[in-house]
Amino acid sequence: MDFYVTVLGSSSATLANHRGLTSHVVNYGGNYLMIDCGEGTQLQMRRFHVPMQKINHIFITHLHGDHYYGLIGLLSTYHLYQREAPLHIYAHEPLQEIIDIQLRASETELCYPLYFHTIPYQHRGVLLDRENFYVHTFPLLHSLPTNGFVIREKTRPRKISKEAIEGVDIPNEAFDYLKQGKDYSTEDGRILRSNELTTSPLPSRSYAFCSDTGYTESFLDDICDVTLLYHEATFMKDDVPSGKLAMYHATAEQAATIARKAKAKQLLLGHFSGRYESLEPLKEEATRVFSKTNLVEDGRRYLIHAYKVL
Amino acid sequence: MDFYVTVLGSSSATLANHRGLTSHVVNYGGNYLMIDCGEGTQLQMRRFHVPMQKINHIFITHLHGDHYYGLIGLLSTYHLYQREAPLHIYAHEPLQEIIDIQLRASETELCYPLYFHTIPYQHRGVLLDRENFYVHTFPLLHSLPTNGFVIREKTRPRKISKEAIEGVDIPNEAFDYLKQGKDYSTEDGRILRSNELTTSPLPSRSYAFCSDTGYTESFLDDICDVTLLYHEATFMKDDVPSGKLAMYHATAEQAATIARKAKAKQLLLGHFSGRYESLEPLKEEATRVFSKTNLVEDGRRYLIHAYKVL
Repeated sequence: MDFYVTVLGSSSATLANHRGLTSHVVNYGGNYLMIDCGEGTQLQMRRFHVPMQKINHIFITHLHGDHYYGLIGLLSTYHLYQREAPLHIYAHEPLQEIIDIQLRASETELCYPLYFHTIPYQHRGVLLDRENFYVHTFPLLHSLPTNGFVIREKTRPRKISKEAIEGVDIPNEAFDYLKQGKDYSTEDGRILRSNELTTSPLPSRSYAFCSDTGYTESFLDDICDVTLLYHEATFMKDDVPSGKLAMYHATAEQAATIARKAKAKQLLLGHFSGRYESLEPLKEEATRVFSKTNLVEDGRRYLIHAYKVL
Repeated sequence: MDFYVTVLGSSSATLANHRGLTSHVVNYGGNYLMIDCGEGTQLQMRRFHVPMQKINHIFITHLHGDHYYGLIGLLSTYHLYQREAPLHIYAHEPLQEIIDIQLRASETELCYPLYFHTIPYQHRGVLLDRENFYVHTFPLLHSLPTNGFVIREKTRPRKISKEAIEGVDIPNEAFDYLKQGKDYSTEDGRILRSNELTTSPLPSRSYAFCSDTGYTESFLDDICDVTLLYHEATFMKDDVPSGKLAMYHATAEQAATIARKAKAKQLLLGHFSGRYESLEPLKEEATRVFSKTNLVEDGRRYLIHAYKVL
């Protein structure tokens, strides 16, 4: 099952160095989920060939403009292109009126169903539950109500053991049963036993999105053991400005500390301050705490790899 | 006096072919005026090195998203960069609440004065009056209340005649008087006469912006004799779709007809439908009616030339 995230923008609100504003598109087995939608997101989607019409769920972390000003343009474009598929938005309450007032001003009645799901203040819980994955949300530490998200795969299928099935006559339709841990009775009266013919499934994969947030351990349980953690790293630790910004944004070192404490397998840093032309020093700062760290890059696709249990 | 327009986007709402959304920035002698501000305008300004902080007046034609969704991002960026200079917005009424609701959602109190000037329904008149130029507005024909704008230079200074001043002793400070048509008394008792030492000024220059609009001759008087006319040309005449779109957008031929009837000196076509990869056929269609036609191009600067009276 495909599981990857395409990063459309890596910049914090102070745009610079040709980096786009925050938006991630996660593909889990053909389910396209967008997290945040800064201004220009639909332009980045075209630029990076992300299939715009396939997105059915959009999650907005909070209502600072660099995380949602591109949403109304995307909704309007869907309308112009006569989208029919329903679209679900998950966000804090004021966004619904912000969308509505703009649609009213242009006398637009969307030609597709738009469902708005309010994220209550400080909410923690499952927002979307599907057969193979679910999306869980949790509060972050920021100057506005802000939520993080984690997309977790449910139990993965067991793996067919090449050695065990050698010489065994297995009808095609039996494989799905065996992978799901079920035994299968053949027409000629044999019982094919899943626990003999398969091995344990790979551990479930997951992707967590934590931005914008100051350093807080309050969501370690929510993202525990995550396969790929995206955590903001607006500043380096020696550059933290005074005042609110220090409380409500994280440094590269803090992001790495969260990754280590949450037992993440890999860390992606993003939401970079416009002051950094070169980002390597942020990576170095994080790597000293958590070695498997990467920097996000506009347009790049990051696989959410299965991992071996240590 | 510098007088030029930088075009930031040439696309209609159905984005395609990497063209940006509508926004023009006019510079008249250091006064930077923006007309429309589609999504991504602030990104285009960075890309094309338009001095973002110098803009003090923003005119919005109408409230279809491709003409204003970039405004809230620009206002927010000014705030982040601690702008101090006042900013004036001229637009139809709903925009004020659209801006306010988004600033409230992010708990933002702008750190610079923002003045909102409502353009009344079907309004025709002067919106901004300065020493050397003024901005006049007039209604266009569109599915929402929509206004066009024309920026007209007031009388230009008279020209010093090289032949007439040869051998005449003229103090430096006298030149401004003479150019303004005033006589000047020298300390040694001579009277320098403007009408003897100068020739008539060049005709005043002007720039008109007409988009979005269907074909209408209702504003010919407003843009009469304009130096450079920007008129939308969403379609070619053989491609006009049925229904509302036909009434509320113009073809290249119609734009050219307006240019001819308004006695414009030059025509710029823009707001191209996403269906056109090559735009030359639109230019050809218009040129058959009005020869001095050009296509706008993202990032290009168009001089508003003085012209000789025929």
